[in-house]
Amino acid sequence: MTGRPADAGAGRDSEAVRAANLALYDAFEAADLDLMSAVWLDEPSTDAVCVHPGWPPIHGRGPVLRSWAMIMANTPYIQFVLTDVAVSVTGDIAVVTCAENMLTGMPETAGASADEVGGGRVAATNIFRRTPGGWRLWVHHASPVLSTEGPQ
Amino acid sequence: MTGRPADAGAGRDSEAVRAANLALYDAFEAADLDLMSAVWLDEPSTDAVCVHPGWPPIHGRGPVLRSWAMIMANTPYIQFVLTDVAVSVTGDIAVVTCAENMLTGMPETAGASADEVGGGRVAATNIFRRTPGGWRLWVHHASPVLSTEGPQ
Repeated sequence: MTGRPADAGAGRDSEAVRAANLALYDAFEAADLDLMSAVWLDEPSTDAVCVHPGWPPIHGRGPVLRSWAMIMANTPYIQFVLTDVAVSVTGDIAVVTCAENMLTGMPETAGASADEVGGGRVAATNIFRRTPGGWRLWVHHASPVLSTEGPQ
Repeated sequence: MTGRPADAGAGRDSEAVRAANLALYDAFEAADLDLMSAVWLDEPSTDAVCVHPGWPPIHGRGPVLRSWAMIMANTPYIQFVLTDVAVSVTGDIAVVTCAENMLTGMPETAGASADEVGGGRVAATNIFRRTPGGWRLWVHHASPVLSTEGPQ
Protein backbone atom coordinates (compact mmCIF):
# COMPACT_ATOMS: atom_id res chain seq x y z
CA MET A 1 0.00 0.00 0.00
CA THR A 2 1.47 3.36 -0.95
CA GLY A 3 0.98 6.35 1.32
CA ARG A 4 -1.17 9.21 0.16
CA PRO A 5 0.43 12.67 0.25
CA ALA A 6 -1.56 13.52 3.38
CA ASP A 7 -0.14 10.44 5.09
CA ALA A 8 3.35 11.40 4.02
CA GLY A 9 2.83 14.88 5.49
CA ALA A 10 1.53 13.38 8.73
CA GLY A 11 4.53 11.09 8.84
CA ARG A 12 6.91 14.02 8.38
CA ASP A 13 5.10 15.94 11.15
CA SER A 14 5.32 12.99 13.44
CA GLU A 15 9.04 12.56 12.80
CA ALA A 16 9.70 16.26 13.36
CA VAL A 17 7.76 16.18 16.64
CA ARG A 18 9.63 13.08 17.73
CA ALA A 19 12.91 14.92 17.07
CA ALA A 20 11.71 17.99 19.00
CA ASN A 21 10.78 15.72 21.88
CA LEU A 22 14.21 14.08 21.87
CA ALA A 23 15.84 17.51 21.87
CA LEU A 24 14.33 18.19 25.30
CA TYR A 25 16.11 15.18 26.79
CA ASP A 26 19.31 15.81 24.84
CA ALA A 27 19.42 19.33 26.29
CA PHE A 28 18.89 17.98 29.81
CA GLU A 29 21.56 15.28 29.37
CA ALA A 30 24.00 17.89 28.06
CA ALA A 31 22.95 20.35 30.81
CA ASP A 32 22.96 22.94 28.03
CA LEU A 33 20.71 25.90 28.76
CA ASP A 34 21.03 27.25 25.21
CA LEU A 35 19.73 23.97 23.79
CA MET A 36 16.99 23.93 26.45
CA SER A 37 16.03 27.51 25.52
CA ALA A 38 15.75 26.51 21.87
CA VAL A 39 13.41 23.63 22.76
CA TRP A 40 10.83 25.84 24.47
CA LEU A 41 8.21 28.02 22.84
CA ASP A 42 9.19 31.68 22.65
CA GLU A 43 5.93 33.55 22.07
CA PRO A 44 5.11 36.34 24.50
CA SER A 45 1.37 35.78 24.03
CA THR A 46 1.45 32.09 24.96
CA ASP A 47 2.64 31.02 28.38
CA ALA A 48 4.94 28.05 28.65
CA VAL A 49 3.90 25.60 31.37
CA CYS A 50 6.20 23.14 33.11
CA VAL A 51 5.51 20.65 35.89
CA HIS A 52 8.60 18.83 37.16
CA PRO A 53 8.03 15.58 39.08
CA GLY A 54 6.59 16.44 42.50
CA TRP A 55 6.50 20.15 41.78
CA PRO A 56 3.62 22.59 41.35
CA PRO A 57 3.22 24.12 37.86
CA ILE A 58 5.63 26.80 36.67
CA HIS A 59 4.31 29.39 34.23
CA GLY A 60 6.21 31.55 31.75
CA ARG A 61 9.31 31.01 29.66
CA GLY A 62 11.65 32.86 32.05
CA PRO A 63 10.67 30.99 35.24
CA VAL A 64 10.54 27.68 33.34
CA LEU A 65 14.07 28.09 31.96
CA ARG A 66 15.35 29.20 35.37
CA SER A 67 13.91 26.02 36.89
CA TRP A 68 15.75 23.93 34.28
CA ALA A 69 18.96 25.83 34.94
CA MET A 70 18.64 25.03 38.64
CA ILE A 71 17.80 21.37 38.05
CA MET A 72 20.62 20.90 35.55
CA ALA A 73 23.09 22.60 37.90
CA ASN A 74 22.08 20.13 40.63
CA THR A 75 22.24 17.00 38.47
CA PRO A 76 25.84 15.75 38.14
CA TYR A 77 24.81 13.08 35.64
CA ILE A 78 21.61 12.02 33.92
CA GLN A 79 20.85 9.75 31.03
CA PHE A 80 17.45 9.03 29.52
CA VAL A 81 16.09 6.06 27.67
CA LEU A 82 12.68 7.02 26.30
CA THR A 83 10.13 4.25 25.84
CA ASP A 84 6.43 4.14 24.97
CA VAL A 85 6.79 7.29 22.88
CA ALA A 86 3.35 8.15 21.44
CA VAL A 87 2.97 11.10 19.06
CA SER A 88 -0.35 12.59 17.98
CA VAL A 89 -0.49 15.63 15.70
CA THR A 90 -3.71 17.63 15.33
CA GLY A 91 -3.29 20.73 13.19
CA ASP A 92 -0.57 22.86 14.74
CA ILE A 93 -0.56 21.04 18.07
CA ALA A 94 1.24 17.82 18.88
CA VAL A 95 0.73 15.72 21.98
CA VAL A 96 3.57 13.41 22.99
CA THR A 97 3.55 10.99 25.88
CA CYS A 98 6.57 8.96 26.84
CA ALA A 99 8.21 7.11 29.68
CA GLU A 100 11.44 8.72 30.84
CA ASN A 101 13.62 5.88 32.09
CA MET A 102 16.57 7.57 33.71
CA LEU A 103 19.88 6.98 35.31
CA THR A 104 21.01 9.86 37.49
CA GLY A 105 24.15 10.71 39.39
CA MET A 106 23.47 11.27 43.06
CA PRO A 107 24.89 14.29 44.90
CA GLU A 108 27.86 13.41 47.11
CA THR A 109 26.11 13.07 50.44
CA ALA A 110 25.93 10.59 53.29
CA GLY A 111 28.35 8.05 51.94
CA ALA A 112 27.27 8.16 48.32
CA SER A 113 30.16 8.51 45.93
CA ALA A 114 29.95 10.93 43.02
CA ASP A 115 29.74 8.15 40.49
CA GLU A 116 26.91 6.33 42.23
CA VAL A 117 23.81 6.28 40.10
CA GLY A 118 20.11 6.00 40.79
CA GLY A 119 17.23 5.20 38.52
CA GLY A 120 13.59 6.06 38.07
CA ARG A 121 10.66 6.02 35.74
CA VAL A 122 8.67 9.14 34.95
CA ALA A 123 5.60 9.62 32.76
CA ALA A 124 5.77 12.76 30.64
CA THR A 125 3.17 14.61 28.61
CA ASN A 126 4.76 17.09 26.21
CA ILE A 127 2.62 19.44 24.12
CA PHE A 128 4.31 21.10 21.14
CA ARG A 129 3.16 23.98 18.92
CA ARG A 130 4.08 24.33 15.28
CA THR A 131 5.95 27.61 14.74
CA PRO A 132 7.71 29.09 11.70
CA GLY A 133 10.95 27.86 13.30
CA GLY A 134 9.69 24.34 13.93
CA TRP A 135 7.91 22.50 16.75
CA ARG A 136 8.41 24.14 20.13
CA LEU A 137 7.56 22.81 23.58
CA TRP A 138 4.56 24.57 25.09
CA VAL A 139 3.56 22.33 28.01
CA HIS A 140 5.67 19.74 29.86
CA HIS A 141 4.21 17.71 32.71
CA ALA A 142 6.29 14.92 34.23
CA SER A 143 5.40 12.69 37.16
CA PRO A 144 6.79 9.60 38.86
CA VAL A 145 5.21 6.29 37.85
CA LEU A 146 4.43 4.32 40.97
CA SER A 147 2.71 1.39 39.30
CA THR A 148 2.41 0.07 35.79
CA GLU A 149 -1.14 -1.13 36.22
CA GLY A 150 -3.05 1.36 38.30
CA PRO A 151 -5.03 0.23 41.34
CA GLN A 152 -6.57 -3.21 41.13
CA MET B 1 -11.51 51.10 31.46
CA THR B 2 -13.96 49.35 29.18
CA GLY B 3 -13.04 46.10 27.56
CA ARG B 4 -12.68 45.85 23.80
CA PRO B 5 -14.78 43.20 22.06
CA ALA B 6 -11.72 40.96 21.63
CA ASP B 7 -11.11 41.14 25.37
CA ALA B 8 -14.75 40.35 26.04
CA GLY B 9 -14.47 37.31 23.76
CA ALA B 10 -11.32 36.17 25.53
CA GLY B 11 -13.07 36.65 28.86
CA ARG B 12 -16.01 34.55 27.72
CA ASP B 13 -13.66 31.82 26.48
CA SER B 14 -11.81 31.85 29.74
CA GLU B 15 -15.03 31.56 31.74
CA ALA B 16 -16.29 28.71 29.55
CA VAL B 17 -12.99 26.85 29.94
CA ARG B 18 -13.08 27.39 33.68
CA ALA B 19 -16.57 25.87 33.76
CA ALA B 20 -15.45 22.91 31.63
CA ASN B 21 -12.57 22.38 34.03
CA LEU B 22 -14.88 22.43 37.05
CA ALA B 23 -17.15 19.91 35.32
CA LEU B 24 -14.32 17.35 35.44
CA TYR B 25 -14.15 17.57 39.22
CA ASP B 26 -17.92 17.76 39.63
CA ALA B 27 -18.22 14.52 37.64
CA PHE B 28 -15.58 12.85 39.83
CA GLU B 29 -17.21 14.08 43.06
CA ALA B 30 -20.59 12.80 41.84
CA ALA B 31 -18.98 9.55 40.59
CA ASP B 32 -21.16 10.07 37.53
CA LEU B 33 -19.78 8.35 34.43
CA ASP B 34 -22.28 10.09 32.13
CA LEU B 35 -21.06 13.48 33.33
CA MET B 36 -17.46 12.28 33.02
CA SER B 37 -18.14 11.09 29.46
CA ALA B 38 -19.56 14.50 28.57
CA VAL B 39 -16.42 16.23 29.85
CA TRP B 40 -14.04 14.32 27.55
CA LEU B 41 -13.38 14.93 23.89
CA ASP B 42 -15.29 12.58 21.60
CA GLU B 43 -13.47 12.80 18.27
CA PRO B 44 -12.31 9.53 16.74
CA SER B 45 -9.39 11.25 15.00
CA THR B 46 -7.94 12.75 18.19
CA ASP B 47 -6.82 10.51 21.03
CA ALA B 48 -7.72 11.47 24.56
CA VAL B 49 -4.78 11.21 26.97
CA CYS B 50 -5.04 10.77 30.72
CA VAL B 51 -2.34 10.40 33.37
CA HIS B 52 -3.68 9.69 36.86
CA PRO B 53 -1.31 10.38 39.79
CA GLY B 54 1.38 7.69 39.80
CA TRP B 55 0.06 6.01 36.65
CA PRO B 56 1.50 5.65 33.18
CA PRO B 57 -0.43 7.46 30.39
CA ILE B 58 -3.75 6.05 29.16
CA HIS B 59 -4.67 6.68 25.52
CA GLY B 60 -8.09 6.68 23.89
CA ARG B 61 -11.55 7.73 25.05
CA GLY B 62 -12.66 4.18 25.88
CA PRO B 63 -9.70 3.20 28.07
CA VAL B 64 -9.68 6.66 29.68
CA LEU B 65 -13.36 6.45 30.65
CA ARG B 66 -12.92 2.89 31.90
CA SER B 67 -10.10 4.09 34.14
CA TRP B 68 -12.36 6.76 35.58
CA ALA B 69 -15.15 4.25 36.11
CA MET B 70 -12.74 2.05 38.07
CA ILE B 71 -11.35 4.93 40.11
CA MET B 72 -14.79 6.32 40.91
CA ALA B 73 -16.03 2.85 41.90
CA ASN B 74 -13.10 2.57 44.33
CA THR B 75 -13.49 6.04 45.85
CA PRO B 76 -16.21 6.06 48.51
CA TYR B 77 -15.96 9.82 48.94
CA ILE B 78 -13.97 12.62 47.37
CA GLN B 79 -14.25 16.36 47.50
CA PHE B 80 -12.11 18.88 45.64
CA VAL B 81 -11.15 22.41 46.40
CA LEU B 82 -9.39 23.82 43.35
CA THR B 83 -6.81 26.53 43.90
CA ASP B 84 -4.25 28.28 41.68
CA VAL B 85 -6.50 27.85 38.65
CA ALA B 86 -4.71 29.36 35.62
CA VAL B 87 -6.46 29.45 32.25
CA SER B 88 -4.77 30.27 28.96
CA VAL B 89 -6.68 30.18 25.67
CA THR B 90 -4.82 30.13 22.34
CA GLY B 91 -7.14 29.74 19.38
CA ASP B 92 -9.11 26.54 19.84
CA ILE B 93 -6.87 25.14 22.57
CA ALA B 94 -7.01 25.98 26.25
CA VAL B 95 -4.40 25.08 28.84
CA VAL B 96 -5.52 24.95 32.46
CA THR B 97 -3.33 24.25 35.44
CA CYS B 98 -4.71 23.93 38.92
CA ALA B 99 -4.03 22.47 42.33
CA GLU B 100 -6.48 19.74 43.29
CA ASN B 101 -6.81 19.91 47.06
CA MET B 102 -8.80 16.86 47.99
CA LEU B 103 -10.47 15.10 50.82
CA THR B 104 -11.03 11.41 50.12
CA GLY B 105 -12.81 8.61 51.89
CA MET B 106 -10.51 5.69 52.58
CA PRO B 107 -11.57 2.13 51.73
CA GLU B 108 -12.59 0.14 54.82
CA THR B 109 -9.35 -1.68 55.49
CA ALA B 110 -7.01 -2.30 58.39
CA GLY B 111 -8.99 -0.48 61.02
CA ALA B 112 -10.00 2.52 58.91
CA SER B 113 -13.70 3.30 59.21
CA ALA B 114 -15.68 4.14 56.11
CA ASP B 115 -16.05 7.76 57.11
CA GLU B 116 -12.34 8.28 57.71
CA VAL B 117 -10.92 10.81 55.30
CA GLY B 118 -7.50 11.49 53.87
CA GLY B 119 -6.15 14.48 52.05
CA GLY B 120 -3.70 15.35 49.36
CA ARG B 121 -2.54 17.94 46.90
CA VAL B 122 -2.22 17.18 43.23
CA ALA B 123 -1.02 19.38 40.36
CA ALA B 124 -3.12 19.01 37.23
CA THR B 125 -2.61 20.13 33.67
CA ASN B 126 -5.83 19.98 31.65
CA ILE B 127 -5.83 20.72 27.91
CA PHE B 128 -9.21 21.48 26.34
CA ARG B 129 -10.24 21.70 22.69
CA ARG B 130 -12.99 23.96 21.40
CA THR B 131 -15.69 21.87 19.70
CA PRO B 132 -19.09 22.77 18.26
CA GLY B 133 -20.53 21.41 21.52
CA GLY B 134 -18.22 23.43 23.74
CA TRP B 135 -14.81 22.91 25.35
CA ARG B 136 -13.90 19.26 25.80
CA LEU B 137 -11.04 17.71 27.77
CA TRP B 138 -8.31 16.35 25.51
CA VAL B 139 -5.36 15.80 27.86
CA HIS B 140 -5.37 15.41 31.65
CA HIS B 141 -2.14 14.90 33.58
CA ALA B 142 -2.27 14.87 37.37
CA SER B 143 0.61 14.28 39.78
CA PRO B 144 1.22 14.50 43.51
CA VAL B 145 2.86 17.69 44.75
CA LEU B 146 5.69 16.77 47.10
CA SER B 147 7.01 20.26 47.67
CA THR B 148 5.81 23.78 47.06
CA GLU B 149 9.21 25.14 46.23
CA GLY B 150 11.17 22.58 44.25
CA PRO B 151 14.66 21.53 45.33
CA GLN B 152 16.72 24.19 47.06
